[in-house]
Amino acid sequence: MNMPAIDFWYDFASPYSYVAAERIEGAARVAGVAVRWHPFLVGPIFDAQGWTTSPFNLYPAKGANMWRDVERICARYALLWRRPSMLPRDGTLAARVALVGAGEGWIANFTRAVYRANFVEDRDIADPAAIADILARLGLASAVLDRASSPEIGAKLHANAGEAVARGFHGAPTFIVEDELFWGSDRLDQALEWAKAPWL
Amino acid sequence: MNMPAIDFWYDFASPYSYVAAERIEGAARVAGVAVRWHPFLVGPIFDAQGWTTSPFNLYPAKGANMWRDVERICARYALLWRRPSMLPRDGTLAARVALVGAGEGWIANFTRAVYRANFVEDRDIADPAAIADILARLGLASAVLDRASSPEIGAKLHANAGEAVARGFHGAPTFIVEDELFWGSDRLDQALEWAKAPWL
Repeated sequence: MNMPAIDFWYDFASPYSYVAAERIEGAARVAGVAVRWHPFLVGPIFDAQGWTTSPFNLYPAKGANMWRDVERICARYALLWRRPSMLPRDGTLAARVALVGAGEGWIANFTRAVYRANFVEDRDIADPAAIADILARLGLASAVLDRASSPEIGAKLHANAGEAVARGFHGAPTFIVEDELFWGSDRLDQALEWAKAPWL
Repeated sequence: MNMPAIDFWYDFASPYSYVAAERIEGAARVAGVAVRWHPFLVGPIFDAQGWTTSPFNLYPAKGANMWRDVERICARYALLWRRPSMLPRDGTLAARVALVGAGEGWIANFTRAVYRANFVEDRDIADPAAIADILARLGLASAVLDRASSPEIGAKLHANAGEAVARGFHGAPTFIVEDELFWGSDRLDQALEWAKAPWL
């Protein structure tokens, strides 16, 4: 079977990536499209644009509207939402653990659990105790944390960052369908349409 | 009759505002929502964010994806599109003329004609000859250009810029429904939904 696929690139600090992570599996199933999950760190991409922190912090009007917009979108899609007390949170550890899960079949569930910790429970996902709690809730051994600290996983995360730059990413989430780049959770439906039948 | 309304704020230099200008009237009619047209200049808002030109020029990866994204969106909605040879183009004169049209019932047609000049015909909309051609095509007397240069129209344009800042705009297009701000052509459908029945 030659099912079309979508590559979903996300940063655990990104509110709109949370929305996409919650929506993508159901939407892709209806569309008949497979999802490949790619945690990455958007920080180096922001650095390259001269930003020292999230643009939502650098540009107050943009940030204020983002909080309201995400709140509205979550209510519209019946997603849980609580504005976190900190943005951005360092998602490096979570991304490392997710990369372990990519090889073991639990990356999607883990990813959603981390996003809920950050954007519903207001927990600091940079804290190893928070990640250990999530692993326990998912029935995963805490030894996963050791594997996540391996040089191989570090190399994978680094390679993801390099691929993101090479492909011309400028934010998160980003969807890739073959060579086509779609930026932002609001492009999810178009990216899935494109995966089924490009119209251009 | 108490029809809900949407305030559509647009800049003639903005590619996504072109998409919104083409789509809004049909979508609003289906939704049973009235459209109020507000040309404004997004420049002062960009200035306030420290940007000396369009963010699509300042951030090359973002700019490259915008051009492809708009091309895809236009194809998807069956809108004409040609990438203009210059961005941004100064929309001050067009905005002044549009404000004359706001009082005379032809602002919507004029707005769409200007966007097509910029984003389909690749004409310099800052050139009074281009605006005169548009007015002629619409059957409007060229004396409109004189009225557009009046101090009253200048004051209206200035007031629009002030209102945009006061309301926390950070880009164009922006939709306002009562006190709710929606940013970006991709929020048009949500803004119309909200106008009919706020869900939060």
